Formats: sequence, structure tokens, C-alpha cells
Amino acid sequence: MLTTVVSTTIKKLENGSIVSPKGFLTSGVHAGLRQAKKDLGVLMCEVPASCGAVYTQSHFQAAPLKVTQESIATENKLQALIVNSACANACTGEQGLLDAYKMRELTAKQLGISEHLVAVSSTGVIGELLQMDKIAAGIKMLQPTNSQEAALDFQTAILTTDLVMKNACYQTEINGKVVTFGGAAKGSGMIHPNMATMLAYITTDANIDSDTLQMATKQATDVSFNQITVDGETSTNDTVLVMASGLAENNPLSPEHPEWDKFIAALQLTFEDLAKQIARDGEGATKLVEVKVSGAVTENEARIIAKRIVGSNLVKTAMYGADANWGRIIQAIGQSSATINPDNVDVSIGSFEMLKKSQPVKFSEKLAKEYLSGTYVKIAVDLHLGDGEGIAWGCDLSYDYVKINASYRT
Amino acid sequence: MLTTVVSTTIKKLENGSIVSPKGFLTSGVHAGLRQAKKDLGVLMCEVPASCGAVYTQSHFQAAPLKVTQESIATENKLQALIVNSACANACTGEQGLLDAYKMRELTAKQLGISEHLVAVSSTGVIGELLQMDKIAAGIKMLQPTNSQEAALDFQTAILTTDLVMKNACYQTEINGKVVTFGGAAKGSGMIHPNMATMLAYITTDANIDSDTLQMATKQATDVSFNQITVDGETSTNDTVLVMASGLAENNPLSPEHPEWDKFIAALQLTFEDLAKQIARDGEGATKLVEVKVSGAVTENEARIIAKRIVGSNLVKTAMYGADANWGRIIQAIGQSSATINPDNVDVSIGSFEMLKKSQPVKFSEKLAKEYLSGTYVKIAVDLHLGDGEGIAWGCDLSYDYVKINASYRT
Repeated sequence: MLTTVVSTTIKKLENGSIVSPKGFLTSGVHAGLRQAKKDLGVLMCEVPASCGAVYTQSHFQAAPLKVTQESIATENKLQALIVNSACANACTGEQGLLDAYKMRELTAKQLGISEHLVAVSSTGVIGELLQMDKIAAGIKMLQPTNSQEAALDFQTAILTTDLVMKNACYQTEINGKVVTFGGAAKGSGMIHPNMATMLAYITTDANIDSDTLQMATKQATDVSFNQITVDGETSTNDTVLVMASGLAENNPLSPEHPEWDKFIAALQLTFEDLAKQIARDGEGATKLVEVKVSGAVTENEARIIAKRIVGSNLVKTAMYGADANWGRIIQAIGQSSATINPDNVDVSIGSFEMLKKSQPVKFSEKLAKEYLSGTYVKIAVDLHLGDGEGIAWGCDLSYDYVKINASYRT
Repeated sequence: MLTTVVSTTIKKLENGSIVSPKGFLTSGVHAGLRQAKKDLGVLMCEVPASCGAVYTQSHFQAAPLKVTQESIATENKLQALIVNSACANACTGEQGLLDAYKMRELTAKQLGISEHLVAVSSTGVIGELLQMDKIAAGIKMLQPTNSQEAALDFQTAILTTDLVMKNACYQTEINGKVVTFGGAAKGSGMIHPNMATMLAYITTDANIDSDTLQMATKQATDVSFNQITVDGETSTNDTVLVMASGLAENNPLSPEHPEWDKFIAALQLTFEDLAKQIARDGEGATKLVEVKVSGAVTENEARIIAKRIVGSNLVKTAMYGADANWGRIIQAIGQSSATINPDNVDVSIGSFEMLKKSQPVKFSEKLAKEYLSGTYVKIAVDLHLGDGEGIAWGCDLSYDYVKINASYRT
């Protein structure tokens, strides 16, 4: 298997997937909720898994999220996840909730496990009821296996306007045992998470209890999924769900474990990798934009400013036009609620210093344009106030974003 | 003169302008800061005028705003305003500040008034120095008059990416004296005011002192300019400036004046009219979108939600596509920080009820599309929580927004 060494202790498995960690199986089928593409998937663990989850902070939480939270509340374990695309089952009232429960019930039956071990996800159009006959028939077709092909089926089934599948796989050793992290995600529009974002499922065979995993999930989400924005919108269905089979047989993980930092680092890398893939595949995007803010008063303020810059329509259109218009970066910083000294801000794009102590610096427009024409643009801001550092990821705003969204429903 | 009766006591003068109130003169010339179009204007009052002003809340306030504030602080009066387009004189450090002072000095000299009676405005690209030789030569050409032609010259000189001029004129009677309000504004991109917005200059011949006018300006701005958004961006140069000549000779206005409410209403109408013109002429806009939120816990929360909806890229692209995708309105409401009962929200577009008590309502997609294809779309949301009402205005997000902003600087 092709691997990339990302640190001395963590490697990336280029061909890995959500079923690479021990104990996980998937399946994806075409239930007929949309034309041609697979639209129903299941992720299963051989054993009840520890779990961590974060959800959208929208006031309008979709029905499946309520059912998932109820499942987890029962004994803090999950063994399977059922997910459909094409219909979000959001703003669907009583019937929507009944439908989500029904999806859980049918899935539990099909897999021969308890209902409360099943999580439910939906993604797609808001305000329409699920076609439950098709869902029911689809669930009966689900036969989870550990194959790479099944993982691809699952990854396809969860996509909506996404152009590409998002997956990531990392490996490390804890207590001398190989611990693997796999992840699959979807998300292209309505991407501006306030807590979780879009749908992201992460598996690991690490041995860790649910409470600790929940804490780790929250922590890793704050610096990854919560730091991407495509269009400043927060979906009603955003969910990040982590399942840990424990089959790697490391000593139970906790912050006191000598290799805790390594575990968190690997989990964060998996999250960040998926988050960047989502930002890169933002609706209509032609490039990934990364903004790093340093010198902020706090980490939180650095993250807020970074996200504000990467979310600015004016910055996004300038990126699309490969225009080194740093004035727009300044205006985005300027309207943030964070602490700023307007007379001492540095801004650079790539290796081009454009503002030093809030004064314009001469740079080659031609070379900057060349750099900005690439597919991965990095912006750096130094506020010279403190040690706070934060990164956010987004994409450019193109004609195609408008095209896709002016006609998504029709 | 063509007039429209907007209330029993206030009428709109369709052909009025910023020089309609007694005592005001303008001039606009081509100083050569940009090609062909006029780019330098002056607004003058025959007497030192009472004034009210609100400015951008950006951390990066441009140099001219600092000079204007210093002018006003001297004796709380203004007699003239000098304004250029093409260059914002923002992020220009020491030299920028010196240039703004120089603009003030040259204008005072040209008009034969004290420097501290002159306000300074600039709008255009951030981070470039003013071409002071051209500005100096231009100021010498300024010969303010009361003519309608001069008003048009002034209105043209302040525009940047605007497609049309924005002006408004209202008239009422106070103490049996005719009181007139005139206004001119510019703004098309970077429109998401946090306090003031873009450039808006309002004249009136009402007799009112500066402190009271400042209070009225703030109050009227909160429900007009602060409630429009084109692209969620806040400029470094936003300014709303009101000058009152007092030549209408009404009794001095204050909240105790029996016709105070009428004065505020007329001022607000002038502000709102200009604000809507700016929203309608948002970069790339094909229509004006108005969102009214009622039933909120407070007026402030109603305004926040209304602005959140009208500012959502997903709502904006749906409006461009004439797509009655109310799910996006819901997602925009959902992520607001305001109080919501997610089970009891009504949403309608035009006369089409789409969500009632958070449940989808059947409506004619065909007729709704017809309505949405118009140039003035109204969205109404009822939260059923309290008496708070608020309105916000914006525009759709089109291919042209991207086109304009991907190439603004180049």
C-alpha cells in the first residue's frame, strides 16, 4: 500500500479508506431516491463501537440528528450508521421524525443489531419527505463487507453536489499496536460549520471509551471542520461521527496515556485532510484557499479572523480572478470582532509580502498572479499582538458557484 | 415638480436632489483620477450647517474619516464636503493622512471657509496613494452652484462600480414651514454596513442642532443603511453624513418638538430610499430583495435575522435563479444567534405561503417562479415569539457579481 510519511510517527495510507481500521464494513446501493447514482449507504462495525459526535448548531436540526442523539444516549455505543442522499429529511415535522425512526428500525433488523446502536443521517433537499418505500427496499439490499469496492459504494452514496469523493486514512502506533484511522465525508455547498459540518464519518480501531472519544472529537473538529467555509451557510444536517472499534488492542486511551498526543495528532490529521478535501471541492471551486493567522491575542481570535478572510466573497472572487487584491483581505480583517492593531498588520500571499506594518509593499503583480493561478493558495496574516495562531480553509467563488446554486432544486 | 404622496404629511419629490433643501450647492469635475468619468465632487452649504455622521466600524478606518471626525470635533459644524472616487486612501499610513489633510486645506481655500468646516471622503481601491497633483488641480476647478446639473455632476463623481446614480428627495412641513431632505449615495460592492455604509450624503434645511441631528442620524441609519447587504463586506470608508442648513426656519427640533416624529419619519424615508437604491444596484444584481421578519423577541433580533437571510449566498443565488427554495431561508434563519422556535416559523415569498408552523405548504411553483422573476422580491418570516419587527434589503448573487469582482482591480 502506498504511504506518505507525514511525521516520524504518523503515516498517511494513500489507498486506505473508511474500512481500513479493524472491524469496519460498508455497503452502498442505488435505492432510487435519485437517478443513476448510489444514494443509500451503511457503515457497520463488527462490535458495538465507542463513539463521538458533533452536530450542526442550526436551530433547525433535521430529524435524523435527533434520532442519532437518542441512539447514542442509550448506552453511548454505536454499531452502524444508515445514510441517504437526495433528501435531507429536514423541516419535515412529525412525519420526518417517524421516517427517521423507521430507517433506524429497518437498518437494525437488516443487520441483526439493536435499534439504539444505529445512527441515522440524511442529506439533500430541505422540506421534502423521504420516499420511505424506496428507502425500505434499499435497506434490504445492503450487505456490508470489508472490501475497498464497498467503501467506494458507500462514499458515492453520501455525495450530493460533490464532484469528487472525500476520504482519508492515517496510521500510527500506540503501545506498539498499529492504530488506523479512516474517514469519508461529503459536503460541497452549505458549508460553513458552526460546530460540525456536512457529513463526515471517521472510523478507528483505537481502544478508547466514548466519553474520551467525544472530547477528542470536539477538540479535533474545532481546528478542522469548524475552520472550513464554502459559502458561509450552515446546513440543518451537519454531523461528524467517529466510531472506534477498539480492535487495535492498545491500552485504553485518555489524556493521561503517554501516547495521547500522538492519537490526537493522527485524529486531527484525518479530520483536517477531509476538511480540506471538502473546501477544495466547494461548489464551483477552482482552488483551495488556506489562511493562516498568527500573532492574534488568542487562538480563538486567530481562527475567527482566518475564517472571516477565507469566507469573504470579495476575497473569494479575487482568488478566482487570481488578483492579488490584498485590500480585500484587510477589509475582511477590519470587520472582524477580534482584537486588531490597524497600524501593525502584515499580509502575504504565498511568498509575496504585500503589507508590512499596515503599509503596502511593492511586489511583482505578474509573479503573484502566476502563484494565484495555482490550485492551492496560501494567505498569511500576522497581527503582532500575541501567540494566537489559527488556520481556516475555503475556496474561490466562481461563475459555477452561482450556476450550481441558481438551479440546485430545479 | 413631480411628487409622490408617501404619507399624509410627507411627499417624495421625484425630481429633487441633494441641492433641493435650502442653502446647498454642489460641483463635480473630472480630475483625471480615472478615465472619462467625473471623479471629484464638492457639497457646500451657504452657512455652517449642523451635522450628524456615522462611520464604518472596520478596524481599518481610512484616513479621510479621521480627518472628517477631527473637523466635526472642532465646533460640531460642517460647511463643505470634498469627495473623490477611484482611490479610497485607506491603508496608506502617514502619507495617506497627510493627503487627506491636504485635500481639506485646498478645499477650504477654494471655498473661502475654515478648514475645520470641511469633511473629506474617498472611495475606490484600497492601499494606493492619492494622486495629489490631480486632486489639487481638480479642487481648483470646483465651482459649486445650486443647479440640478451640478447635482448630477456631484452624484456621478462619487460612483465607482455603481451602474446608476442614487438620489432621493422628501418634503414635509414643520411649524408650517416647508422642510426638505435631499440625498445622494454611492455603493455597489463591499456593502454590508456594520454602522454606516458606503457613502451617503443627506442634506436638509431643517433647523436642528448637531447633537440632536447626530442622534437622529444614528437612529435612522440603524433601520436603513445598516439593514442592507450586498456581499457581507464592510468597507474601510463607509460614511453617512447629514448636513442641516437650518434655513427652513422651523422651531429648533428635539424629541420634545410636537412634530419630531414627522421629522424622523421623513429623514428615515430619505435614508431608506437611498439604502434600497444601493441594494438594488448591488454588483451584478438583477433584483432588489426585501426581507421582513416579524414576531421576533426584539426589534434587534428581527433585524439580525432579516439581514442574515438577505445576506445568505444560497438565498441570493436562489433569487437569481428565481427558485422558490425556502429551505435556504430556513437554513439562514437556523444559523442566526437570535431566539427561534424551530417548530413554529412561517415563511412566505410574495403572496406565496411556503412554510406554516415549520411545515411545508403546497404552492404553485410556476406562479412563484413568475413572481421571483420580477425585479423586487419580498420575503416575509413570522417567528411567532414577540412583537419585534425588522426589514433588511439586499440583492441576488449573479454571474456578474463574480465577473465584476474577479477583475475589479485589474
